[in-house]
Amino acid sequence: MSIPMEKLDVAKKELTALLGERCSTSQAVRDQHGKDESWHELCAPDLVCFAKSTEEVSEIVKICAKHKIPVVPFGAGTSLEGHINAVEGGVSLDLNQMDQILEVHEEDLDCVVQPGVRRKQLNEHLRDTGLFFPIDPGADATIGGMASTRASGTNAVRYGTMKDNILNLTVVLPDGKIIKTGGRAKKSSAGYDLTRLYIGSEGTLGVITEITLKLYGIPEAISAATVSFPDVESAVQSVILTIQSGIPIARIEFLDDVQIDAINKYSGLDLPVQVSLFLEFHGSEQGVAEQAEMVGEICKDFGAEDFKWTSKPEDRTKLWEARHNAAYAARALRNGASMWATDVCVPISRLADCILETKADLDKSSLIAPIVGHVGDGNFHLAFVLNMDDPAEIAEAEELNARLIARAQSMEGTCTGEHGVGLGKKKYLKNELGEGAVEVMATLKAALDPDNIMNPGKII
Amino acid sequence: MSIPMEKLDVAKKELTALLGERCSTSQAVRDQHGKDESWHELCAPDLVCFAKSTEEVSEIVKICAKHKIPVVPFGAGTSLEGHINAVEGGVSLDLNQMDQILEVHEEDLDCVVQPGVRRKQLNEHLRDTGLFFPIDPGADATIGGMASTRASGTNAVRYGTMKDNILNLTVVLPDGKIIKTGGRAKKSSAGYDLTRLYIGSEGTLGVITEITLKLYGIPEAISAATVSFPDVESAVQSVILTIQSGIPIARIEFLDDVQIDAINKYSGLDLPVQVSLFLEFHGSEQGVAEQAEMVGEICKDFGAEDFKWTSKPEDRTKLWEARHNAAYAARALRNGASMWATDVCVPISRLADCILETKADLDKSSLIAPIVGHVGDGNFHLAFVLNMDDPAEIAEAEELNARLIARAQSMEGTCTGEHGVGLGKKKYLKNELGEGAVEVMATLKAALDPDNIMNPGKII
Repeated sequence: MSIPMEKLDVAKKELTALLGERCSTSQAVRDQHGKDESWHELCAPDLVCFAKSTEEVSEIVKICAKHKIPVVPFGAGTSLEGHINAVEGGVSLDLNQMDQILEVHEEDLDCVVQPGVRRKQLNEHLRDTGLFFPIDPGADATIGGMASTRASGTNAVRYGTMKDNILNLTVVLPDGKIIKTGGRAKKSSAGYDLTRLYIGSEGTLGVITEITLKLYGIPEAISAATVSFPDVESAVQSVILTIQSGIPIARIEFLDDVQIDAINKYSGLDLPVQVSLFLEFHGSEQGVAEQAEMVGEICKDFGAEDFKWTSKPEDRTKLWEARHNAAYAARALRNGASMWATDVCVPISRLADCILETKADLDKSSLIAPIVGHVGDGNFHLAFVLNMDDPAEIAEAEELNARLIARAQSMEGTCTGEHGVGLGKKKYLKNELGEGAVEVMATLKAALDPDNIMNPGKII
Repeated sequence: MSIPMEKLDVAKKELTALLGERCSTSQAVRDQHGKDESWHELCAPDLVCFAKSTEEVSEIVKICAKHKIPVVPFGAGTSLEGHINAVEGGVSLDLNQMDQILEVHEEDLDCVVQPGVRRKQLNEHLRDTGLFFPIDPGADATIGGMASTRASGTNAVRYGTMKDNILNLTVVLPDGKIIKTGGRAKKSSAGYDLTRLYIGSEGTLGVITEITLKLYGIPEAISAATVSFPDVESAVQSVILTIQSGIPIARIEFLDDVQIDAINKYSGLDLPVQVSLFLEFHGSEQGVAEQAEMVGEICKDFGAEDFKWTSKPEDRTKLWEARHNAAYAARALRNGASMWATDVCVPISRLADCILETKADLDKSSLIAPIVGHVGDGNFHLAFVLNMDDPAEIAEAEELNARLIARAQSMEGTCTGEHGVGLGKKKYLKNELGEGAVEVMATLKAALDPDNIMNPGKII
């Protein structure tokens, strides 16, 4: 569905009058805005607009609303299900120049940021205050993008996801109106939870232009550990008992033997090529030592032999860099290959079954796909390493992915724990939530964006 | 606005055919369902229906939808802003007979309950599993009511509110369709957050008929403490530093001198009649001792002298019973008086100012109103003790309440941290969130309940 040229021309004139050179039709800029880090194919927008303020976003959206031209909010472009691909053309609204940290309230443990602020930038900025923002999806994503996809990552087992760490949003509605969804109080019962409605709405209901985030004190002590297991079952049982025991673990990451092999090669580690957990503990010196000891005991009871912990910052950094580079390490297993990442999340009691059945399914296939996971939450990822020019490989990955999702859903889990729906998971929503719930989502979308200009073709 | 008698008669016949004696028009039953624990005046429904299953709720709602008759979901009736008063008549849908705990998944730390389950009943049921559900609004409310009002209470500083502790809801929509909003995975990015949309919607968007709750391990050790301060400022500064230090305190409750006096008399305690904190610590034996010591030091630095802690269960029980009876203790300060409770929540840095200005405003008035608060979250309550037959007293309370809310809102806080909007806080929403956000709420309501049959007259 392409937009009539006359309409685009008029809109372009109006947007150029507003933004000058910050309205671009260069093919290179459009292509750069037409694809995220996923396998979904490039869909370039017709125009790219770079906004500098909430008011400017409002003006841009008003122009697009007048001409019924799609608006696709764009952050770091690190999403994984085609969220920012402009499937119906229109305007890619780049928010990277809105990168100011507007307020830091140390006493209240919160801050107010623009959507283009990157998570690493925020933590650099906060360092001297003794505070930090814990949500860490791996990529150096923008806070706006993380809010829009309800992102989480390695720290979620302790600190929750984006849904748990936002107090207020400023949102530009599809007609250009500007609203705020909350205040700075830690909790509120004042009406419908608009904050949570926009978190995870993937730019389909409006443009997030300001975010009030919860912050946390940097722990007095942090230590990390690695531990290898004889099999998947014993690793997962150790996780379950750790969580059940109420140990306030900050990170508990699962890596299968294939992934360990990949990161040994890519990041120069020499871990035993076995199913492993990477762990992190936050607390007082004494608390961290106590936690590590308890988890070490649990792992030993399930057959682990080499629980190694360290409080040296350089060792920790090396470990988590290796973990964050897991996807690149996976891709490097095969020359010139691409990567297709997917994620599911299941109740933790079903996690071992889900991983084992998935590994068995993979073993029967011709594809390599390391497994890593935020297993404290029951969330894990598969990264298919494949040749995107080979339709047979793509078809095989699609089938494996569909079976993975059906498996997770049959276990009362979800087709996506943290990547979001975008284009890739749309067809799986009905099986997970039922026709009625998806109809409610469609009703919300139609009510709040009647002309369907906000990131059309996503979620619904 | 009353419902035509013919319409009611037809509906009553159909509902009686469905429910038999569980459809009542007795005046006593109707009156009992026409008022919560607040000051808002009785509005009796025309009929009261007692449902036993989700399917029955669906049938009841379908009959009401056909005749466009209001449906007001009813739990324990302990709400505090007129949430269940049938201001437009219709059917009060009593869910107390749906009181089954359907599933407990110990490994996954979750359970599935019907909406009429009471929180104390749930914790009794869970005791042998070593798990518990922490949200504690004081009253022995139903889980369905707590979900509908986004309740929280004394434990929220550590365990969050209802919004943070629900994985999935079954909801009967205004047309009788049954949906579920999630699964049992700990997190999900699968589309709009319908779970959070219905939490806190106060029965205005549908009827919650099943709830999947997160559970927690009962802490190895629990201890409690009381401490008195020379003034409000020093108590609140102690709270701020405790929170900032990342001490995982489970409860931190503020009681002003008036409230301490009231509970000394009512519950037979002999606490110094000064601004005080009641605290609770959860963790390992060692962790709890460490936490109590750290908080004790902090309080001492701010001028407290009598930090007393105990790990005896009977002492703890006595303390929290006294805290939970704070409202009744307040009422007992004046013979034959009624109580009017209100709550606000502000960023914690503004809490001392907000409490001090409120106390000054109260001092100038003729009313008594003790202050208690979940101050770790910046949330506090006023309980006006008044003669509801005296219009002058009511007018004075209304003015004090309006000024309290304006004060909290001017500090980036909210007109209600945990009671909800109901009837009492409706007029304050626009000042807090702006016209645009309230319009979005109205759009949601109109889209999801176009005939406005679900608990009409509340929130919007």
